[in-house]
Amino acid sequence: MLDSSIVYLNHQFLPKEQAFVSPDDRGFYFADGVYEVIKYYKGKPFCFMEHMERLHNSLNGIRINFTRSAELSAICDELIRINGFESEYAAVYIQITRGVAPRMHRFPGNDIEPTMYIKAFLMPPFLHEIIHGIRVITREDIRWHRCNIKSIALLPNTMLYQEAVEQGAGECFLVRNGYFTEATHSNIMIVKQGVVYTHHDSELILPGITKGVLLKICRRLGIKVNETPVRSSETDQMDECMVTGTGSEIFPVIQIDDNLVGTGQPGPITRKLQEELFTMTYWELAGERIVMSRE
Amino acid sequence: MLDSSIVYLNHQFLPKEQAFVSPDDRGFYFADGVYEVIKYYKGKPFCFMEHMERLHNSLNGIRINFTRSAELSAICDELIRINGFESEYAAVYIQITRGVAPRMHRFPGNDIEPTMYIKAFLMPPFLHEIIHGIRVITREDIRWHRCNIKSIALLPNTMLYQEAVEQGAGECFLVRNGYFTEATHSNIMIVKQGVVYTHHDSELILPGITKGVLLKICRRLGIKVNETPVRSSETDQMDECMVTGTGSEIFPVIQIDDNLVGTGQPGPITRKLQEELFTMTYWELAGERIVMSRE
Repeated sequence: MLDSSIVYLNHQFLPKEQAFVSPDDRGFYFADGVYEVIKYYKGKPFCFMEHMERLHNSLNGIRINFTRSAELSAICDELIRINGFESEYAAVYIQITRGVAPRMHRFPGNDIEPTMYIKAFLMPPFLHEIIHGIRVITREDIRWHRCNIKSIALLPNTMLYQEAVEQGAGECFLVRNGYFTEATHSNIMIVKQGVVYTHHDSELILPGITKGVLLKICRRLGIKVNETPVRSSETDQMDECMVTGTGSEIFPVIQIDDNLVGTGQPGPITRKLQEELFTMTYWELAGERIVMSRE
Repeated sequence: MLDSSIVYLNHQFLPKEQAFVSPDDRGFYFADGVYEVIKYYKGKPFCFMEHMERLHNSLNGIRINFTRSAELSAICDELIRINGFESEYAAVYIQITRGVAPRMHRFPGNDIEPTMYIKAFLMPPFLHEIIHGIRVITREDIRWHRCNIKSIALLPNTMLYQEAVEQGAGECFLVRNGYFTEATHSNIMIVKQGVVYTHHDSELILPGITKGVLLKICRRLGIKVNETPVRSSETDQMDECMVTGTGSEIFPVIQIDDNLVGTGQPGPITRKLQEELFTMTYWELAGERIVMSRE
């Protein structure tokens, strides 16, 4: 993962090594900020407006008064260009915090300008995971109760993902009150008897943009969708499972803790959704049928 | 609240305006860090070792390998001295994050050095609140489920405290599953029929150091203590209530939402605990009896 050599901070493009923030930034003291990651497929952003809408909702959710939304598209495009990522698979990371103020829990006055930090990085498809699928572990969902806000208060996500990494797993499924909510940085989709189940949008999960695209694809293809959570005790009833997200796109999930999902191989609905999504994104590769051809 | 002009960052004392952190600091991206605030009463730290023990527990709780604990006492003392706060009521703020690394959820390798940021600031007693007490509001406790770790993932605390501020209240009491846990940056103690109730230490609250001191004082004075949570629906049965913390020390709570606590005046056990605590801390003022004399 190659990072930007040029980033954007507040009002300027500058070399990464010259970008610094104040320790008084409320992002550093309080995790008082939100973020988005947008994938650029050979220079073309995927679902940019959907990411902007979610960013807007996150900013509203924590009441940051951010007035520069209209500038974001041009800044992101320019970061892709200036870093030489126009013909690559890359992404931009946007972080907006409430700004710099002496450390006090209460919000500072509206004269404080939000901090805006944006960088680009290479993000080629995770082909091994896309093709072969991943194993996941399960853990109690210990996160806060406003997971619909894409905040930078990600400490629990990093702790739980790290547990997955140390067990050689590709993600950690989160269980709240007996039900799967989502994973540490992706949404969960489960197939049972031909129906795709995924947690309904609520304060307990992030409204995934890739998930939203896939649900539309399901409906177009006549695949039934049921937006209701699945019990973590019902893994033996799953035929297929996958995680979805901007980074993961679609990873088949072939094992949950010690239990194989279905046959332990990526299933047909998963493969169909990968094919449909990748036709939208890796259009340059479409002729190679990257996923299907390697099975 | 006057801040340090000199702060300590990583390996050096430096002027505040020259202190900057990388946007790649995991404290900025992920709230991947912990903190402590220690009050210095005219140059003398209060419960320094207890704060160090809690810091150690927080670092262990999120698995930051911090090897410089032995240096902290001298650095904090020096910040008080160098900023001219030796004969003031002041505090030091210590923040330790996992360090600087390219943004990935998984923990970086152990070759990454934690970021250490320490500053001092003036913190005179909040006399008005101490004397007259505060009103509080109540809200659902939406925080994560490891509140025993003093992490910098404080976004929910700031959001909930801000609601209190906007309603002219002095704190926000948090309610989980029908029970008071704690407030956004203080612990809760409740008096019913001569018994002091406070939430037992668990993953749902921070183990308060001031609370710990006060429970010891209660036991010494023969005041019964019951470390069990109180239902938020039982405010009409409270005779007294208070919040405790390093900053607040002891604020009487005289009203919870629309309900007066007891008579709506600070009660006798609250006053007794203030007197005992302030005898330990504001010893120079003991002759003035700051609290009692102004009632």
